[in-house]
Amino acid sequence: MNPETSPETSPEQAAREEELVARVVASFDGCEDDRLRTLMQALTRHLHAFVREVRLTEDEWGAAIAFLTAAGHITDDKRQEFILLSDVLGASMQTIAINNEADGDATEATVWGPFFVEGSPEIELGGDMSFGAPGQPCWVEGTVTSTDGTPLAGALVEVWEADEDGFYDVQYSDGRTSARAHLHTDADGAFRFWGITPTPYPIPHDGPVGRLLAATGRSPMRASHLHFLVRAPEHRQLVTHIFVEGDELLESDSVFGVKDSLVKEFVEQPAGTPTPDGRAVEGTWARTRFDVVLAREPQTD
Amino acid sequence: MNPETSPETSPEQAAREEELVARVVASFDGCEDDRLRTLMQALTRHLHAFVREVRLTEDEWGAAIAFLTAAGHITDDKRQEFILLSDVLGASMQTIAINNEADGDATEATVWGPFFVEGSPEIELGGDMSFGAPGQPCWVEGTVTSTDGTPLAGALVEVWEADEDGFYDVQYSDGRTSARAHLHTDADGAFRFWGITPTPYPIPHDGPVGRLLAATGRSPMRASHLHFLVRAPEHRQLVTHIFVEGDELLESDSVFGVKDSLVKEFVEQPAGTPTPDGRAVEGTWARTRFDVVLAREPQTD
Ligand SMILES: [Cu+2]
Ligand SMILES: [Fe+3]
Ligand SMILES: [Fe+3]
Repeated sequence: MNPETSPETSPEQAAREEELVARVVASFDGCEDDRLRTLMQALTRHLHAFVREVRLTEDEWGAAIAFLTAAGHITDDKRQEFILLSDVLGASMQTIAINNEADGDATEATVWGPFFVEGSPEIELGGDMSFGAPGQPCWVEGTVTSTDGTPLAGALVEVWEADEDGFYDVQYSDGRTSARAHLHTDADGAFRFWGITPTPYPIPHDGPVGRLLAATGRSPMRASHLHFLVRAPEHRQLVTHIFVEGDELLESDSVFGVKDSLVKEFVEQPAGTPTPDGRAVEGTWARTRFDVVLAREPQTD
Repeated sequence: MNPETSPETSPEQAAREEELVARVVASFDGCEDDRLRTLMQALTRHLHAFVREVRLTEDEWGAAIAFLTAAGHITDDKRQEFILLSDVLGASMQTIAINNEADGDATEATVWGPFFVEGSPEIELGGDMSFGAPGQPCWVEGTVTSTDGTPLAGALVEVWEADEDGFYDVQYSDGRTSARAHLHTDADGAFRFWGITPTPYPIPHDGPVGRLLAATGRSPMRASHLHFLVRAPEHRQLVTHIFVEGDELLESDSVFGVKDSLVKEFVEQPAGTPTPDGRAVEGTWARTRFDVVLAREPQTD
């Protein structure tokens, strides 16, 4: 049976539908850009396969047009509803997966998220990237190595995260810079810094994507995470997060960013526990470890 | 071979991609609306199959987001770029095909197009629907019958078309109503009216959809056509066009609306040829025939 029709679909009807798909595919035959032709013809096939498989009604088609229109109208310089849509359908994560192919022990990538900002402040090894953002202090340490085990000295490590209220600095209207920084690994490829223990937050859900999540019984919450971007010469740039072991949102992260290999133990330390660098901390603090392995950049001529 | 990966894709990589698809599909398991769940899970599968098959790059993903954003921003009360996008990908026509299943001799449906307006003026049988729109006068006649051959008396026939400059009345800023009307069939199910011989026109192509057509070597032109909407009790409403035999755009209609069964001979009459109703026409005129067959509405309880 053709999965795109049902037992009630006549051969005459199926032939009409197939002829149409072939006609649309052929309309791109004259496209001189090979890659664009491949993309448009594949898009046509999958789009039509979807419409045919679900036997899309005219009302549903109209609802889809209205959804895209609303997404377009809420999108501006600060709000990107189409990226949110791609995120909640897992298309962003799938694109990341495809462009970061599995390579030995190389650390897995995950989504960028909308809150990365170029030009974060630089901190020293052991410095504090929170810049006063509210949250439980968290000591983060690890190494950056190549897939063959070589430590990568001087690698760039960018980190950014939400505060304990679930907001990034750019979501405040006062122009603050906090909970984001970059640093470089030492001669042994090691890094360490103070941040804050990650807490969960929702993706923006007051628009059409939020309504879609609500209508389908899904949560807009992201599992708690700390963003990393790691870059070293001759290696593939890595954009990823680490997640918090035991977070009950790990199974339902709204953008499908969680990978088992990225879930780390954040060990809470009782108040008064001496800190690794002797810093005085009032109350509890946490510590975690993230060892990053970068894939080598494929050789290019 | 899995069509969504290439021979160079490792089993480990394929497993990661498939696991992600399964996770996104499962995220909709809790959706209480069965139909919505079916739609979202099928959309997820086809979207991911597309992304995986073409091995979408991050730049291409970004271009898609930018395209949708531009489409959203050009869309307003008068301009609907998402419908244009659906049209040029054949998705509108496929939805029409699915919702107007082949049924014996029933006349084939085609796209609505953006220029239908509720509340057109009524004309008598043999009246003139052009209301002064410039173009070659064209006598159109035919019948409306049911699939069993029964003539349908009193059936509603709505007709609308572009003028010889390729514009619909609503595209002029003077609020005119022309080249649109409705009439009713006589006791024998017959109709006849004066219109104008259809001429080609482009879909709006000054936006992202127009740029996509240009980049892929496609034309924005629609084959010349005259729109019909035909409605009779207990029958499926028909929305269709007739096309002009010999029009060189029949093979490349930008929205895939052409069906062989809808291509009609428009016979040009030399100046001075007596008209069917004795009307005096200066210069040449044309005539055509369109016999409409309506499918019975499926029985509902
Ligand atoms: Cu598909
Ligand atoms: Fe984030
Ligand atoms: Fe039209």
